[in-house]
Amino acid sequence: MRITALAGGIGGARFLRGLLAAMPDAEVTVIGNVGDDITLHGLRVCPDLDTVMYTLGDGIHEGQGWGRANETFSIAAELEAYGVGPDWFTLGDRDIATHLVRTQMLDAGYPLSAVTEALCTRWKPGVKLLPATDDRAETHVVIAEDESKRRALHFQEYWVRLHAPVAESIVFVGAEQAKPAPGVVDAITRADVVVFPPSNPVVSIGAILAVPGIREAIAATDAPVVGLSPIIGASPVRGMADKVLAAVGVETSAAAVAEYYGNELLDGWLVDESDAAAVERVQAAGIECRAVPLLMTDINATVAMARAALDLAAEVGKK
Amino acid sequence: MRITALAGGIGGARFLRGLLAAMPDAEVTVIGNVGDDITLHGLRVCPDLDTVMYTLGDGIHEGQGWGRANETFSIAAELEAYGVGPDWFTLGDRDIATHLVRTQMLDAGYPLSAVTEALCTRWKPGVKLLPATDDRAETHVVIAEDESKRRALHFQEYWVRLHAPVAESIVFVGAEQAKPAPGVVDAITRADVVVFPPSNPVVSIGAILAVPGIREAIAATDAPVVGLSPIIGASPVRGMADKVLAAVGVETSAAAVAEYYGNELLDGWLVDESDAAAVERVQAAGIECRAVPLLMTDINATVAMARAALDLAAEVGKK
Repeated sequence: MRITALAGGIGGARFLRGLLAAMPDAEVTVIGNVGDDITLHGLRVCPDLDTVMYTLGDGIHEGQGWGRANETFSIAAELEAYGVGPDWFTLGDRDIATHLVRTQMLDAGYPLSAVTEALCTRWKPGVKLLPATDDRAETHVVIAEDESKRRALHFQEYWVRLHAPVAESIVFVGAEQAKPAPGVVDAITRADVVVFPPSNPVVSIGAILAVPGIREAIAATDAPVVGLSPIIGASPVRGMADKVLAAVGVETSAAAVAEYYGNELLDGWLVDESDAAAVERVQAAGIECRAVPLLMTDINATVAMARAALDLAAEVGKK
Repeated sequence: MRITALAGGIGGARFLRGLLAAMPDAEVTVIGNVGDDITLHGLRVCPDLDTVMYTLGDGIHEGQGWGRANETFSIAAELEAYGVGPDWFTLGDRDIATHLVRTQMLDAGYPLSAVTEALCTRWKPGVKLLPATDDRAETHVVIAEDESKRRALHFQEYWVRLHAPVAESIVFVGAEQAKPAPGVVDAITRADVVVFPPSNPVVSIGAILAVPGIREAIAATDAPVVGLSPIIGASPVRGMADKVLAAVGVETSAAAVAEYYGNELLDGWLVDESDAAAVERVQAAGIECRAVPLLMTDINATVAMARAALDLAAEVGKK
């Protein structure tokens, strides 16, 4: 069975761990978000790709969900002693080694997809991990500094430095000129199932869909496309989805996110059992919907979510 | 008093510590060797400049004489896990922070002299530290692989990887096109004393002298030029000076090194007390020579060496 999943960072990576445990023999391709990528201290950092790679390769800091286990911070302390910023984004030493290898390969002319494959030969994540694009397509968030002044910030500055203030709009800088990385469209077209994990619909899945050709491939694929809501009740399970949903004019609810994707993309949608009242509204939008427990409290709960998504895919795929 | 010293790595740096302790009010300029510089993992590494900076800035690993105190090696372990070489040159995490800052500044277009000055704002070495040149001038060592085959190696590969096998010749790649860094010639011309610390005469001091304009400035300066022998008896105090002296056809002795520099450069020369028999030969070469203890066993011994060098400079300067 060929499963293709779009993924952001922590939520996507944790869901994928459940998916692999549920379907150990499946051939899983992950299309990773690169809109959050940033260059710091001359090093190319790909937070979402690395979170997927480290999580599935057992290198992740389990407690925080990102970064390396048993991390050290000698370099961050030194950079501070040199007075070299930014001081709002701390890179661990082990993590920096990944960025050094990546940056060297990129500087040597390899595309990000080839670099990611090379890094994965060490981590053996058990999935084929593809960046959405090898081109630069950066997620910027526009905020109001005062009545008359707007400012566009790199997503990392918006989230890590400013902790997600009210956002006015989201811009995927360079996305219009970006092409899907090699294998991305094929993985969607040839999949038996396409899954949207409970990742941020705007700055994770949305940034992937902003690369021309990816949304179209998902809309056109014969495979059933099912998603899991990252919103439970009126809040994101983690992160700042409420802020960025507001910026694109979407309310923070499981049903509104399904409508935002729309039935051009989604065939099925899972909402949390506490949001059972939303099922009818999602169905009315032409998307099959089920209410199941959606909190990834442990691996068993996550496996059950993956199974529920695949069950729904099987159901909608028969139509 | 203005003192200008040429310096390589460990020996030069330790001598400078003694010089600063002996002459706390002197204005000391250090012209550092950059022939050993190397790019590793995309990072520009300047071993000799850093050894001087860390030693005088109290950041050095005292036991080994190079690298940072309280160093950690997370990145080296990660690079090994990624299978990324070279495996014969290990960079510590704290040290890597210096190279990250340097590489970023160089990539931004700053010359190495400006970068070194910026790094020194943190370390406050108590000297003005100038690279011999802002241009690339790399020390390569030619070895015989077999009867008919010669191979030129970067100095670091020759020394760190191969532990200094028999050398056939030394090549300063790019030196002919290099220009002295800003301030270098002026520091020699305007000095009250020029000192050659007990550094390697071929690959440290020699690599500095290979930059056109530096040798000429030293030959022309009105300041007395005095040096301290890095050879005691028939061996270098540390390092591989015997191997590289042989490659330039010079015997490994305090007197032969003085003759190698010649009285165009040197006005005075200190040999170790155990080499007192060499004094006559050096004097015969037109260089004032004294025999004094030259082992830098502790700071007091090093201060005494610095004082002996300055005393000799005062003596030859009166002529």
